[in-house]
Amino acid sequence: MSEIGVKNGVATMINVFHVEPEDQKKLVALLVETTESVMRHVPGFVSANIHASVDGTRVVNYAQWESEEHIEAMLADPEVHPHFAEVRAIARPERGTYRVVYVEEANPRD
Amino acid sequence: MSEIGVKNGVATMINVFHVEPEDQKKLVALLVETTESVMRHVPGFVSANIHASVDGTRVVNYAQWESEEHIEAMLADPEVHPHFAEVRAIARPERGTYRVVYVEEANPRD
Repeated sequence: MSEIGVKNGVATMINVFHVEPEDQKKLVALLVETTESVMRHVPGFVSANIHASVDGTRVVNYAQWESEEHIEAMLADPEVHPHFAEVRAIARPERGTYRVVYVEEANPRD
Repeated sequence: MSEIGVKNGVATMINVFHVEPEDQKKLVALLVETTESVMRHVPGFVSANIHASVDGTRVVNYAQWESEEHIEAMLADPEVHPHFAEVRAIARPERGTYRVVYVEEANPRD
């Protein structure tokens, strides 16, 4: 269970992958495998949260890192590049680094 | 504090808004206002989580609803349409409905 909050202090990387519906399952499996074998061992990793679109055309990785600097360092790490190439062979990623600015809940827990 | 989990049972609407950097703050304010005045009162609303990209070119609303049917009903609701039009005047939305398929955490809480 990951948490989204304005005061979490994490940096959020949201990556929307555009994919052919017949490749969506393969892409999810690839992102899960990359998270478990590589990303979770990279300094600053907080969480990865993988979402499959109902229409089959997209996968989103909502990933939390300790800081924007940790994201930059991960993106520059040559060890992760072969994994990005595997993903790019079947999907078009659209990545951004974000700050949470507002949270509104029907039933707030804090 | 919103929670992301495979077993949450919520439907997730992720909307990536492409915006000119000079309009990013205005867009965030508009989405916050729409959430507070309209969305949180729509049946099935669970949470809205608004993210501003560090580079200024995007805003993401990560919104949770009780079900995909609640999202469809909200999108078809004529009361919300004027608010969508206001947003579209300054931003290009790219919306998808998603299911959480995988969560990995550095320090799991459950």
